Amino acid sequence: MALTVQEIGQRAKRATNDVAHLSIAVRNNLLLEMAAALLEQQHAIIVANQEDLAEFATQLSEPMQHRLTLDEKLIRDISQSMAAVAKLPDPIAGPFDEWRTHVDLKIVKRIVPLGVVAMVYEARPNVTVDAAALTLKSGNAVILRGGKEAKRTNMVLAGIMRQVLQRNQLNPDIIQLLTDTSHETVHTLLHMRDYVDVLIPRGSAQFINFVVANATVPVIETGAGNTHIFVDESADQEEAIRIIHNAKTQKPSVCNAAEKLLIHENIANDFLPKIVDVLVAAGVEVRGDELSRTIDERIVVAGDKDWDTEYNDLIIAVHIVSGIEEAVTWINTHTTHHSETIISTNTENVATFMNDVDAAVVYQNASSRFTDGFEFGFGAEIGISTQKLHARGPMGLSALTTIKYEVFGQGQIRE
Amino acid sequence: MALTVQEIGQRAKRATNDVAHLSIAVRNNLLLEMAAALLEQQHAIIVANQEDLAEFATQLSEPMQHRLTLDEKLIRDISQSMAAVAKLPDPIAGPFDEWRTHVDLKIVKRIVPLGVVAMVYEARPNVTVDAAALTLKSGNAVILRGGKEAKRTNMVLAGIMRQVLQRNQLNPDIIQLLTDTSHETVHTLLHMRDYVDVLIPRGSAQFINFVVANATVPVIETGAGNTHIFVDESADQEEAIRIIHNAKTQKPSVCNAAEKLLIHENIANDFLPKIVDVLVAAGVEVRGDELSRTIDERIVVAGDKDWDTEYNDLIIAVHIVSGIEEAVTWINTHTTHHSETIISTNTENVATFMNDVDAAVVYQNASSRFTDGFEFGFGAEIGISTQKLHARGPMGLSALTTIKYEVFGQGQIRE
Repeated sequence: MALTVQEIGQRAKRATNDVAHLSIAVRNNLLLEMAAALLEQQHAIIVANQEDLAEFATQLSEPMQHRLTLDEKLIRDISQSMAAVAKLPDPIAGPFDEWRTHVDLKIVKRIVPLGVVAMVYEARPNVTVDAAALTLKSGNAVILRGGKEAKRTNMVLAGIMRQVLQRNQLNPDIIQLLTDTSHETVHTLLHMRDYVDVLIPRGSAQFINFVVANATVPVIETGAGNTHIFVDESADQEEAIRIIHNAKTQKPSVCNAAEKLLIHENIANDFLPKIVDVLVAAGVEVRGDELSRTIDERIVVAGDKDWDTEYNDLIIAVHIVSGIEEAVTWINTHTTHHSETIISTNTENVATFMNDVDAAVVYQNASSRFTDGFEFGFGAEIGISTQKLHARGPMGLSALTTIKYEVFGQGQIRE
Repeated sequence: MALTVQEIGQRAKRATNDVAHLSIAVRNNLLLEMAAALLEQQHAIIVANQEDLAEFATQLSEPMQHRLTLDEKLIRDISQSMAAVAKLPDPIAGPFDEWRTHVDLKIVKRIVPLGVVAMVYEARPNVTVDAAALTLKSGNAVILRGGKEAKRTNMVLAGIMRQVLQRNQLNPDIIQLLTDTSHETVHTLLHMRDYVDVLIPRGSAQFINFVVANATVPVIETGAGNTHIFVDESADQEEAIRIIHNAKTQKPSVCNAAEKLLIHENIANDFLPKIVDVLVAAGVEVRGDELSRTIDERIVVAGDKDWDTEYNDLIIAVHIVSGIEEAVTWINTHTTHHSETIISTNTENVATFMNDVDAAVVYQNASSRFTDGFEFGFGAEIGISTQKLHARGPMGLSALTTIKYEVFGQGQIRE
C-alpha cells in the first residue's frame, strides 16, 4: 500500500534530524556507496526505463523520449556526478560568524540544512539522483516527485539509494519518492506547510508558473529564460556572430539559450544579413520586427507574443533598437530575469547594461550558455533561480542551507 | 485623483534604477534631511495623528490607540532612528566576491537592491518612516501600505519624505504610500508580480497567514511567535525565574515574549509553585496541563488550542515534560519557528536543544526578548523572519538586498 502524501511529509519531517546529525564523513560515504550501487544495479534501472519508454513511446515527442532514456553511459555519468558530490566541501560546516552583544550574549550564526526539500520535476530521471545527492550532502531530507513517464525508473533509482541508507542502519525516509502523481496529490504537496520547508519546481515555464500561483509552501522559482543578446554599435561583429551562434544553437532546448536578438540601428544594415546567414545555415528560423524585415527578407514576422515567448527551439526573434537605453528598457520589460548579454566594446554602455538590466546573470561579450552551476565553479547545481529571494542564478549546495542563530547567555534579561 | 495600485507599482518599478544609482553619500544625506524635516514639521504630523485618533477612538482598543499615537517625544525618536540609519554601513557596497572560471570568464557576485519592496503593516505609523529609511538606504523603491487607522498620519509622514526627494531633484516615487486600503487593492498588490520584488507583511498572525496564503509575489514571512521556555532538571532555578519573568512580562504584546513554559517533571513539585508565585504577582494568568494543576491549584485549565496560541498578553501555559527529548519534540510540534529557550546547566541537553529545535533563534539561559535587530547588533530592523528562505530571524539592511552575477568575457562560447 503506497503512503499518502501526508504520510510521506510526516516521515520526511521526522527524518530531518536523522540526516542533519550525520557527520560529513558518513554523508560522503553514503554518496559513494550509492554511486557504486547505481552501477551495480544498472541492469534493473535499464529494464525499468525500457518499460517506462514502452508505455509512453506513442505519447511523447522525440526530444522528450530522449530526455527520459537511460543507457549504460548515462548511468555511468549519473553515478560519477553523485560520487563527485562527495568531493565537494561540506555546505553546513563552520567556521560560523560569531560575536558578543552589548549585554555579552554570545551569538553564533550557524549554517543549517533547510529541513525537508521537495523537488517536483518532469521527465528527466537523472534529477532523481542529482537532487538526492545534493540534499543528502547538505543534510536535508528530500521528497522527490518526478513525472509519471519515468515512474518505474525513478522507483528503481530511489529504491537503490534507500537500500544503501537501510544497510547502514539509517532512516530510509531521508530519501522518499512520491509515486502518486495525481493532481490532488500535487495540490496537497503545494500546501503542506507543516512538512515542506522549500519546494523547488523544475520543468516548463507553464509548470513553474502553476506552482508559483498555487503553492503556499515556500518556493524557489527556477528556470524560464527569455534570454536576450544586445549587439551594440561598437560590437566586434565576428565575436558577436560566434556568441550568438553558440548561445542559440549549441543546445536550444535549455533555459540559458538565446531567444531574442536586439541590434543597434546604426549597424543593422551591415550586421543583420551576416548573422542571418549564419543562423539560417544552422537551421534557425529568424523572426523579426518590421524594420528588420525590410533589411533582410529571409526574416519572417514576429508577433507581439513572440517577445515574451521562450522558444526552447531553433527560433530567434530580432528587434532593432536605437541604442543602449532602449535596449535596457526593452529587456527589463520582457526579461524573465535569467541571463542577459551585451556585446560591446563601449565601456560606458557595458556598465549601464550590467547595472541596469534586472537579471540574475548579466554578460559582457560571452555566451549566456555559461549560466550553470558547474560552469560557474560551484561543483553542482540544483537548479537556476530566477527569483531574488534566498538564491539567485545558478544554485549550488549553499542554496539548500539556511541560517540559525544560537544565543548563549548567563541569565541575561532585557531591561 | 489617487493613483491606482497598478500605477503605483509601475511608478515604483520605474524608480528602482533612480534609487539604485544614488551614491551612498546622497542616500545618507537624504536620510538626514528627512530626519530633520520630520522634526520641523512635527506639528503637521501631530495634527493629522489627532484626526486619525479622533475618527477611530471608539473602534480601537486602548493598546491599539496607544500604538497609533504620535507625540513630540515619539516623533523625536522616529527622527533619530532615521538619522541613525544614515550612520550604518552601505549594504550594497563592495568588496564583492570575484573569481575566474575554467574558461577565464571573470564573475563578480555583486550585492544589489531587491528593487521594489512593498511593506504592508497595521496600525503603527513609525513603520512608515522606518521602512522608508531602510529601503532608501539599501537602494530600493518602496510601496508603503499602512492601516486605514493611520491614514492621515502616514500621508503626512510620506509627504514629508517625498518633499525631500523632490527638493533634491529626485524621483519622489522612490517612496510611495498606498492610501487606498480596500480589500481589492490589497488583493491586487499581492499579485503584482511584474512590479513587486518582495512583500513584507507585518502585523497579526492572522494577517500574515492571509498574505502567505494569497500572495503570488515573493513574501518574507514575519513575526508570529509561540515562544517556549524549557526549564530543564539541572536549571539554576533563580535564573530561570528571572528569565521567565522577563520574557513573559517585560513587553507581553510582542512576538519574542514567552507564551509557553515546559518544566522537567523531576523539578515540577519544587519549581512550579515558585514560578507561579512570581507570575501571579506580576498579573499573569497561568494555564496548564492536568499534572501541573494537581501541583498548583492556582493554575487554570489549558485547552488543546492553547498550545498553538500566541497570546500577546499576560497569559502563559505550562506543560510538564519527561525530559529533553519530549521538550524538543513538543516544541517542534507547536513552534512558530521564531525564538525558543532552554534553561539548563547540562551541556549535553543544551547541545541537543540548540541542534534539534527548528527555530530562527535558539537560546540557552537568556530571555527571548533579545530577538531583535538592534539587540543583535544589526543597527536596524525591518522585521523578524520566521521562514527559512532568504532571511531568517531579525532582519537588518542586508535582508533588503539580493545578488547579481556580472560575467565579463572576451568572446567565450560554450563547447
